[in-house]
Amino acid sequence: MDTQRGVPRTHARATEPGATGRAGARDVPTATVARLPGYLRVLNGLTADGVVTTSSEELAAGAGVTSAQLRKDLSFLGSYGRRGVGYDVLHLSEQISVVLGLTTQRRVVIVGIGNLGHALASYSVFAERGFAVVGLVDADPALVGTTVGGLMVQPPASLHDVVSGADATIGIIATPAAVAQDVCDELVAAGVVGILTFAPRALRVPAHVDLRAVDVASELQILAFHDRRRTGTGA
Amino acid sequence: MDTQRGVPRTHARATEPGATGRAGARDVPTATVARLPGYLRVLNGLTADGVVTTSSEELAAGAGVTSAQLRKDLSFLGSYGRRGVGYDVLHLSEQISVVLGLTTQRRVVIVGIGNLGHALASYSVFAERGFAVVGLVDADPALVGTTVGGLMVQPPASLHDVVSGADATIGIIATPAAVAQDVCDELVAAGVVGILTFAPRALRVPAHVDLRAVDVASELQILAFHDRRRTGTGA
Repeated sequence: MDTQRGVPRTHARATEPGATGRAGARDVPTATVARLPGYLRVLNGLTADGVVTTSSEELAAGAGVTSAQLRKDLSFLGSYGRRGVGYDVLHLSEQISVVLGLTTQRRVVIVGIGNLGHALASYSVFAERGFAVVGLVDADPALVGTTVGGLMVQPPASLHDVVSGADATIGIIATPAAVAQDVCDELVAAGVVGILTFAPRALRVPAHVDLRAVDVASELQILAFHDRRRTGTGA
Repeated sequence: MDTQRGVPRTHARATEPGATGRAGARDVPTATVARLPGYLRVLNGLTADGVVTTSSEELAAGAGVTSAQLRKDLSFLGSYGRRGVGYDVLHLSEQISVVLGLTTQRRVVIVGIGNLGHALASYSVFAERGFAVVGLVDADPALVGTTVGGLMVQPPASLHDVVSGADATIGIIATPAAVAQDVCDELVAAGVVGILTFAPRALRVPAHVDLRAVDVASELQILAFHDRRRTGTGA
């Protein structure tokens, strides 16, 4: 997972009143922000299991980090847990949700309704995590007008209206690589401030827009590196 | 993107003869390994455009890193480029491919053939990047026996045979979170050494298995953090 920005921001302020429930909260490093969803995911699992308090060790193990890393990350939220008691699962979940801005539902538009776009359009986990897919756009005339996940697929010409009309702030790009940059530019022009791309190519966005990229083939290539080392093949 | 391992390895040796085409090559930090596919992606784009040489600035910009970072990463491969000339696109591509172990095709089995599994099973980019999907498994009786991306979907009972029979070394988990750990354990028992999971929950694997996790909802949550900071909503 790379944030494809020429000069990546190293810190992200979380100091609005209430951002962490404490005025003058410390900066939250973006590396910590990137780990918070993982902690929240583990906490939600514990809540579902009826667990009320958890230890930094249990939480760290579930998230795949060291407990030292976990405690350091949570300290940026002003959350230190209580010696001998640990962390209150519900309270910590709420704290992280507030810091991540999940207490307000975010509206998402998906561009590119192929197999992946279909999967994303009907991905129930989005709703559970505070996101609402409010628009679908695809260039294929055979898809335009069809309904996916309860939404009608709109043509590219409608992209700006779909985004601004629904006041969407996040765009997901699931198009072929060749058109991804154009789609990205159109989403930015339409007003989104966050873009998640699955297109296997680097994209450029202005400084005020955050870009996250998921390149599935790259993930496999990283696994291949370790596989080669183990089997000694491919070299 | 997190590598969900209790004690993440910080370095990965690439010292087999030929690993980098140079005996006694330096260790390649896993953080560098994680960026190599991005560089390779940009290099492939340049090759497609008929570009023969590139500068560290051009390559870095395309990959979304600083040129200093790029030069440092490539130095681990023993590749420094030539002053005033830059990097030979084809040679550097080959170097990275060898280090990543992409000169041998890796065989992949996908478990969970829902919308996402469908998308992955017919994802042409895998083949372009040196991966062959050789098996599909799903628990839904309505799916078992159907053909997706040229492969017949097999039942869970056949998972071990599908993996060992095709000598697959990488498993992709696209199942619901509830069964992901069981599927993960079965893939490991069947002999895969690399797992890429899309299930929205942390998974445990033995030390000899590499785990990469893509949690799409978490990526959106990271974007939401910046959105909240910008709009001041959700706090």
